[in-house]
Amino acid sequence: MTGVTGKSNGQWGPEGLDRAVAALLRGSGLSLALAESCSGGLISKRITDIAGSSEYFLFGAVTYANSAKMGVLGVPEELLLRHGAVSPEVAVAMASGVRDLAGSDLAIATTGIAGPDGGSREKPVGTVYIALIDGSGCLVHRYQFAGGRDEIRELTATAAMELLYSRLVEIVNDTSR
Amino acid sequence: MTGVTGKSNGQWGPEGLDRAVAALLRGSGLSLALAESCSGGLISKRITDIAGSSEYFLFGAVTYANSAKMGVLGVPEELLLRHGAVSPEVAVAMASGVRDLAGSDLAIATTGIAGPDGGSREKPVGTVYIALIDGSGCLVHRYQFAGGRDEIRELTATAAMELLYSRLVEIVNDTSR
Repeated sequence: MTGVTGKSNGQWGPEGLDRAVAALLRGSGLSLALAESCSGGLISKRITDIAGSSEYFLFGAVTYANSAKMGVLGVPEELLLRHGAVSPEVAVAMASGVRDLAGSDLAIATTGIAGPDGGSREKPVGTVYIALIDGSGCLVHRYQFAGGRDEIRELTATAAMELLYSRLVEIVNDTSR
Repeated sequence: MTGVTGKSNGQWGPEGLDRAVAALLRGSGLSLALAESCSGGLISKRITDIAGSSEYFLFGAVTYANSAKMGVLGVPEELLLRHGAVSPEVAVAMASGVRDLAGSDLAIATTGIAGPDGGSREKPVGTVYIALIDGSGCLVHRYQFAGGRDEIRELTATAAMELLYSRLVEIVNDTSR
């Protein structure tokens, strides 16, 4: 499967983006796992809104509590203590942990501060890290979203779907694959 | 905390129900874990829509794939083979598995056929089992919902919140506790 063109953000509504991601996952045969903290199940919900998603969506973990980040995903306590739950290090450890647990090709993790409480000077409400990991590597982005709790959660889910879309387009266009 | 009155279904919208469940969880100090199959993260999303839910919501698992039901939640393969993923036995095993994993007081699990495909004569589209487990026992209900995929998922999430509400009211009204 080659020749898919990347689209810039905002060219479609969230539902069109979600359908494009679903088509890429189905077409490529790649499987997905999710570890959600601040998005709280919203990405899992959007992925499973689409019938047939059980073909590629193996497992979603909603790990609000640090105990679940450690106990289920295997995030080292040292990382949580040193960097805090909202950090690039923890986002990557969550993505890596859920990928190992599910045995998926790709995994995405979110961690951030949806508010209204929990913000600080260094990490105000709306600070979100999203990590994506696959067989060839890992990336993590920092976002600073504005808005209320619902808006920050929606923006987080959409940003995660955009990251996933971009990476899937790269993978299916990689003729060396 | 005593004297809370049970309300019949449909007396409030979903958001009022969700806020009532949140108030009961916060007031009782009880913690919650979720294992979602057909509801696909929607219950986690509704629980975490409410700020402060990290106090009582420990972990949510979205286990669409049987591999995740077995590998993450510890559902025995024999149960899946003998009864199918959409069965009271598997609903209970999912609830029990996620409660053990998260170390929560209560756990709820959903498994069903949201459609449009996957139905059979014995288990048509809209067949859903919801299990609730806590320290003193377990219950599982069968539902037959009508409607499209989105509607069946929403009805599943609302039925789960209603079960949780009823059980929490029972617990907080139990003066022997």
